Order: sequence, then C-alpha cells, then structure tokens
Amino acid sequence: MTEVVIGIDVGGTFTKYGIVDKNGVCLREKFTNTEKFTDFDLYLKNLQSEIDKTIQTLGADIEVKGIGIGAPNGNYYKGTIENAPNLNWKGKINFVEKLKKFYPNIPIVLTNDANAAAIGEMLYGGAKNMKNFIVITLGTGLGSGIVVDGNLVYGQDGFAGELGHFNVRDHGRECGCGKKGCLEAYVSATGIKRTVFKLMSETIVESELRNISYNDLTSQRISESALNGDKLALQAFEITGHTLGIKLADAVACTSPEAIFLLGGLAKAGPLLLEPARRHMEENLFPIYKGKVKLLLSGLTDTNAAVLGASALVWKELQN
Amino acid sequence: MTEVVIGIDVGGTFTKYGIVDKNGVCLREKFTNTEKFTDFDLYLKNLQSEIDKTIQTLGADIEVKGIGIGAPNGNYYKGTIENAPNLNWKGKINFVEKLKKFYPNIPIVLTNDANAAAIGEMLYGGAKNMKNFIVITLGTGLGSGIVVDGNLVYGQDGFAGELGHFNVRDHGRECGCGKKGCLEAYVSATGIKRTVFKLMSETIVESELRNISYNDLTSQRISESALNGDKLALQAFEITGHTLGIKLADAVACTSPEAIFLLGGLAKAGPLLLEPARRHMEENLFPIYKGKVKLLLSGLTDTNAAVLGASALVWKELQN
Repeated sequence: MTEVVIGIDVGGTFTKYGIVDKNGVCLREKFTNTEKFTDFDLYLKNLQSEIDKTIQTLGADIEVKGIGIGAPNGNYYKGTIENAPNLNWKGKINFVEKLKKFYPNIPIVLTNDANAAAIGEMLYGGAKNMKNFIVITLGTGLGSGIVVDGNLVYGQDGFAGELGHFNVRDHGRECGCGKKGCLEAYVSATGIKRTVFKLMSETIVESELRNISYNDLTSQRISESALNGDKLALQAFEITGHTLGIKLADAVACTSPEAIFLLGGLAKAGPLLLEPARRHMEENLFPIYKGKVKLLLSGLTDTNAAVLGASALVWKELQN
Repeated sequence: MTEVVIGIDVGGTFTKYGIVDKNGVCLREKFTNTEKFTDFDLYLKNLQSEIDKTIQTLGADIEVKGIGIGAPNGNYYKGTIENAPNLNWKGKINFVEKLKKFYPNIPIVLTNDANAAAIGEMLYGGAKNMKNFIVITLGTGLGSGIVVDGNLVYGQDGFAGELGHFNVRDHGRECGCGKKGCLEAYVSATGIKRTVFKLMSETIVESELRNISYNDLTSQRISESALNGDKLALQAFEITGHTLGIKLADAVACTSPEAIFLLGGLAKAGPLLLEPARRHMEENLFPIYKGKVKLLLSGLTDTNAAVLGASALVWKELQN
C-alpha cells in the first residue's frame, strides 16, 4: 500500500493538483480550469471528479491520507478563501467544508499559497533542517510564508505573512489590494515591469524594451535584456533588488530567520535579482544580524513547487 | 512557604530588581548601580550581595524558584549580553553563566528587556488571554517583543523582534546602532524630540519649546506642551504617530497580532500618540487586517514593568 496525499494549488486561471508520496515524489500532476467556473460548487465538483479519475490511474494499491490546498487569501483556521482578488468567487468560500462532503474521512487543510510553499521548502526543499526561515514567492504579486521555531506563523486570524503589503512609500504605487505603496507593486513580476516603465519615462537610456508594450512585457523578457547588457533592464533589477533588500532587512528584524528563500517567476532571474537584494539587505540589517542571514533561491523546482507545498502542508499535519 | 522569583532589569544607569510572587506582586523592589561598575564581575558580586540582603528581609518562609533578567541585547539562547551600546561592558558578557555560580540550583533566564516586557504583559498585563500580540517599548529607543501562538519569537539567534530598526527612510536620521533611518530615530522619547527640532528648523510656528535646549527637552515636556495646545508639539505627535502607524501596519503584515501594546516614557503621552498611531496604522493595514488589531497602552504600570517582565520570564519558564 502506497500512502499518498493530494496537493492542490488554486490559481486564478488553472488549478493544479498532484498525487504526492511521503518523499515528495509527485506520482501524477494535472490541472483543471478555475477561471471558467463562476459557480464555486460546479468548480469543486469538476475538480473532485478529475482528482478521482487521476487516483484511479494509480491502481488499487494507493491510500489517500489527506488533502492539502494552497489558495490566495486562504485561511488556515477556517478552511476558507476570503475575498481573493484574482478569483471569480466573491466573499467567503467554505472550501474545506465543501470538499469534506466528497472526502469525509481524511484531513483536509488549506492555507495561502505562499504558506504552503514554505512548508514545501521545509519538507522537500532547502529548509530541511531549518526552524526559522521565510519563503517569498515572486509571481504576479509577492507572497510570503514565515516559519518560526518549526511552525508556520498564522497569527490571530490565519492571515499572517503578507510581506507583499509592507509599505514601501507613502502614497506610492497603486496596489491591487486598494492601498498605495505596497512592496508587491515594486517587487514582483509586475513590479519590475512598472519600474522599467518608470525608467523609460524618466531617463533617456536606450533600451530594446522600449519596443515592447506594457501588456506584452514579461519579467522573463526583462531578465533576457539584462543578460544581454541592456542598461535600463539592469537598472530595473538594481532598483528592484534595492527595494527588496531593505524590506527583507525589516522582515529579519521581526523574526530573525536563518534564511530567506525566493521562489516564482521573478526569482528565475537568479543572480540578477539575488545580488542586489543580498547587498542591500546586508547593508540595511541591524548590526546584530549582519552576516547571519542567507538569501537563497528556493530548493523546490518551480514547476510543481505549489503542488508540493500544498501536499507538504497535509503531510506536516499528519505528523502532528 | 511563599514561592518567589527574582526579576532583574539591567539598565545603563541602574539595575532594578524585585522579588515577585506568582501573582505578579512585587514584595520588594530595589536598585543597584550599573554605570559605576566598569568591571562586570564586580558589578555582579555587588548585585548578588544586594539581592541576598533583600531576600533576607523577607524572613525564612521564602523559596526563590528562579531568576529572570531583562537586558539590552540580551540573548535568550546563550544567556549573554552582546555589545550593548549603552552598557560599559564590551563584547559578549556571560551573564547567566556567571550568575549561576552564585545560584547554581535554580533556573536563570535572560532575554532583552522588551521581550521580558512582552512576557510580563502576557502573565500580568493586558495580554492575559492572548496568543498573538506585540509589545513596543518607547523609551530612549524603541524595543519590541513579538509573541506568536503564546511564545516569544526568538529567531535563529535569540535576537528576533528589533522593530526599532525597521527602515523608515533610506539615508534617514542617524541611529545609535550605526545605521541610518531606523524607526527608533523617529519614534521614541528621543525620536519625537528630534522631530520637534526638525519642525523648529523648518517652520516658523511659535512654540514654548523654542526656549528649551536639545539636552533639556524631554518627551514629557513635549506632551505637556501638546496638552496646552502648543501647535508645534501637536504636530510632532501627529508626525510621530504617522511614522509609528505605518510601521505597525508592517509588523501586522508579518505576524498578524490581536493587539499591540505600547509601554514606556513616550507611551505616557497616551491619546496624544495613540490616536494618530491608530489612525495611520488602520489606514495602512492590508485590507484583510483592517478593524482587527487593537492598539493599546500596556496593562503594566510603568514603574515596575521591566522588573515584572523579567520575573514573568522565569515564571513562564517554570511552567514549561
């Protein structure tokens, strides 16, 4: 009998899921549509039937021990998704309660996607022997999961760890959350694009990026230009790393982690982002922390990090 | 037999200590000199002999169960004080190890003063039934103790919770720690004084504070002027509350506490500081946290909060 869990990563466009064993090996990985289901119940019914079909492909020798879900604005305590800006379903969605109707006899755990990634990092990634660390996901936005003394920090309401909404600048850039000046408006795949467009408006530096529209520009394209020596792209990475470094130093002043891991689309830029972020973090650390905090790329491969994280969430729960 | 602990608060000028019972009643409270002892061993010998004399005044029916120490740059894991800028003893001081020679059979626990205050708040103050909260001490500097899930956050190195060194402004005000732009250079008894002097330089607003030298001005005097309607003093509180509010919103984004408690000299200004801090914190909170976080004055009386906190630290240790 092979014991497995289901890891589910709820994204705005697709929902990825995987069947994962205890060693973090993904036996199956699939996805279903999120976007086209405006009705949550229909979405869930479709997801469940797809998952069950996938389980059957593994034969009879499989025991599903639990389900872990990573979702935007996921509330660990309540098992809900609350007002997630990039999902169709408004208000409070009782994800866990409704999924339990299909799987009444196994634990189902939900948290936000970055928290799930942090647990994944701890069980399968670079944080295997760490008790205190932070995972930062740099996608469309900036998510974070904070681990203190071996446990995720959930806070009073289940929503702790929103470093993407650290204040960078009073009355700064508009953020999707309704506030202004949030970190994720500066540091994320979208954030660096906004910085590129700011630099195009403020400088006369020539750049191949000046031929690309805002909607067409990706953070990967900015990386490629930077690697080609494009000065404007390089400057955008320096500015982004500067902002990130300062705010990571603030995060260190909170929980004093051993390491901070970067994950997600913008993290693929590697040293282009890591080098300035590390330099500015170090420069801004309270002296007692200097030279102690590692800034690293995630040890999880990006393709299934979210699914692995979600599965790790429930494996960890089963350990307790 | 009355069970008691010794709570010690190591300050730059004086060391206060108290003999405290389980209910947080301070049976005796005294102080010895810190400043005049350039040699740590002589300091400790004097402190120990004073403590022993004080214990004797309580008669034979007393059992000392442990000693708790709050000290600047106190390291919980190692029992050391490391490079505290306002103490005479340089480098790493093995406080607990050396004190154990005098009291070999009871637990001795040390942490930084703000962490001790947080434990005090949990055992004897306003955080009695709280699992997630932050205590901010506003004295000469700004210290903080962060509690997550009922436990103090110590981090990888024992030095977590240094919100006073959050970055307010790149290349901002010089801070005692050697960095620039730290929160405590803006929000503390010293910070608000610096803001008053900045306003005196930048504005032509009349103020009774213009008659007082920098060295003579205290945060209490600024409070008094504000209460008298002095416009410059009021503006200084508004600015200080603004800076504090934004940074508290950042702290909330880390650990999502139920409440934040303010303690210490500048907190005595009460609503003068609380009102703008609350307003700006609320305005800057990530929407999911809005309306959830209480900003309160500490439930500990200021006079012996530090001693109570240090004693609470060891009472909590004895519980575990």
